[in-house]
Amino acid sequence: MSLPRIAVDAMGGDEGVRVMVSGAALARRQHDQFKFLLVGDETRIKAALDAHPNMRGASEILHCEDVVGGDEKPTQALRRARTTSMGLAVNAVKAGDAGAAVSAGNTGALMAMSKLALRTMPGIDRPALAALLPSLGDHDVIMLDLGANTECDARNLVQFAIMGAAYSRIVTGQAEPRVRLLNIGTEDIKGTDQLQDAASRLRDATGLAMQFDGFIEADKINRGQCDVVVTDGFSGNIALKAIEGAARFVTDLLRNAFTSSLRSKIGFLVSRPATELLRHHLDPNNHNGAVFLGLNGVVVKSHGSANAAGVANAVAVAARLLEEDLTQRIAADLGTLQAAQSTPGEAA
Amino acid sequence: MSLPRIAVDAMGGDEGVRVMVSGAALARRQHDQFKFLLVGDETRIKAALDAHPNMRGASEILHCEDVVGGDEKPTQALRRARTTSMGLAVNAVKAGDAGAAVSAGNTGALMAMSKLALRTMPGIDRPALAALLPSLGDHDVIMLDLGANTECDARNLVQFAIMGAAYSRIVTGQAEPRVRLLNIGTEDIKGTDQLQDAASRLRDATGLAMQFDGFIEADKINRGQCDVVVTDGFSGNIALKAIEGAARFVTDLLRNAFTSSLRSKIGFLVSRPATELLRHHLDPNNHNGAVFLGLNGVVVKSHGSANAAGVANAVAVAARLLEEDLTQRIAADLGTLQAAQSTPGEAA
Repeated sequence: MSLPRIAVDAMGGDEGVRVMVSGAALARRQHDQFKFLLVGDETRIKAALDAHPNMRGASEILHCEDVVGGDEKPTQALRRARTTSMGLAVNAVKAGDAGAAVSAGNTGALMAMSKLALRTMPGIDRPALAALLPSLGDHDVIMLDLGANTECDARNLVQFAIMGAAYSRIVTGQAEPRVRLLNIGTEDIKGTDQLQDAASRLRDATGLAMQFDGFIEADKINRGQCDVVVTDGFSGNIALKAIEGAARFVTDLLRNAFTSSLRSKIGFLVSRPATELLRHHLDPNNHNGAVFLGLNGVVVKSHGSANAAGVANAVAVAARLLEEDLTQRIAADLGTLQAAQSTPGEAA
Repeated sequence: MSLPRIAVDAMGGDEGVRVMVSGAALARRQHDQFKFLLVGDETRIKAALDAHPNMRGASEILHCEDVVGGDEKPTQALRRARTTSMGLAVNAVKAGDAGAAVSAGNTGALMAMSKLALRTMPGIDRPALAALLPSLGDHDVIMLDLGANTECDARNLVQFAIMGAAYSRIVTGQAEPRVRLLNIGTEDIKGTDQLQDAASRLRDATGLAMQFDGFIEADKINRGQCDVVVTDGFSGNIALKAIEGAARFVTDLLRNAFTSSLRSKIGFLVSRPATELLRHHLDPNNHNGAVFLGLNGVVVKSHGSANAAGVANAVAVAARLLEEDLTQRIAADLGTLQAAQSTPGEAA
């Protein structure tokens, strides 16, 4: 077997075992060479597998009963890394028993367990959480960090740019993804010292597989003008949630508007295919699967409320990253950066 | 005359004199006791006044030809404070010739000129830019700071909370507006030291005319669960622009969806009243008029691209703040805070 298997925390998430197993089964239709390690309650996993013949021969079950709670503090969850479904899924990656772990459980706990078990890659100071967002362009835009690091220095931001570009090359197939730093203006003088320092490092770097285009403001994230948006975890989390909230706000207004009169109800029914298209574009399940980048192994976070199609997207993200060897790509770019930095006189 | 007049920079903004004068005229229909000082090219202002008989007797013109450019650096614009329409409008407030200034010009230049000419109120370390955002609640939500201060400490955030609450009391009529700090989670341990420190100061403060409800995440800003969202200028600018961008993204998708087939075009026409309602809710003109809070005088920034109705909203904001004496309200709350802080043993 050339490809490592995928460990699935079958117990995490609001929907539980059935949705996690169904999602993995759906993903396996596109990625049929993958095998799975399903971690959780054996009886319930077996019951869920009954509905998915394509999974039975491809799955091993690792039984455990303990589950990390949704509101549990990361420090508390860490102590139960060896007994919980989340901890065992991550530890399978550490032990080389799997190449990737997928969980829909508590984000903070997953981050903490992943960092502790897998450690950061050589050349990476801190891992980052990256997600795919819908855009008006041909493909999703990647944004990172989304909350793993509240405060970041210029060096962290440069590493995030390299990791995000490697991820984008896999997702979009582009050789040099367009990378920008999130800022409150596009002029050189805008923003914090860290941002200006990071911009100057990225401008001066040569040989990286990306095109660095400077700063981007938050209203342009979805316009399709760039492939990777790099930011600290605080601003990234604010931007991500502001976008989610605003999209929900507009669709709520739209629903209110469409149900405000008989005429608009009829209009809504007639234009149903159009609003279905909108719903499809905005459905978080279609962009599910945030990735912890920069660890010695792939860890994918599925939305807690994702349905089977959403879980399938998260599992497919893990499969793509293993097929394309994300970790190796990031290592190669870090090597290029370090080689350039040890050669003097590269600055513009 | 009991109410001070309003100085209008008639030259700022993309649309120029006619829109600024028409906007003031529209606002004067609701606030007919106000008089205006219109600053800019006399010939063009006179021509614009021809269309608005209600403004003629209520307006004085202060002629000047110099205009601050949209891309001009604040430091550069500052040198021309005594010759530009923006500078003269602000200086009229300083000289007591007007109670408020309204401009649709360069935000950075307006902030710099206002700070220099009007100075911060006693007890305020830094002014903040506040705006009204649409919400699912009964009234708009106020968010501040939106970019005046890239980095803020706990003391700044507490002052922003007081200023925002005073503004909200005027806009909403509520005695104790619900105030929250923007953060990446609602648990006590989330976010930066500054945020935790600010939260603890606001929790401990007594006698302030607000209800402090802790943290809020960016996806809840528009849900109608709070009246004032307090944040540093970097995060506030990111959140504001992310919301604007996402709202535009959704409406763009909707437009594409509605024009994708004949059936959906017909649906769109039938449901026109519904989508008009949506457009009305999201139209930035209906939420126009960002306010610089914390100065010795009222300064309102109108969107550069606002139409006459938008300018009218910005002028009406200035009028409301003068009628209700915002500056005095902020001073009173600062006094309460300082009195409480000089009395020991208040902490919870």
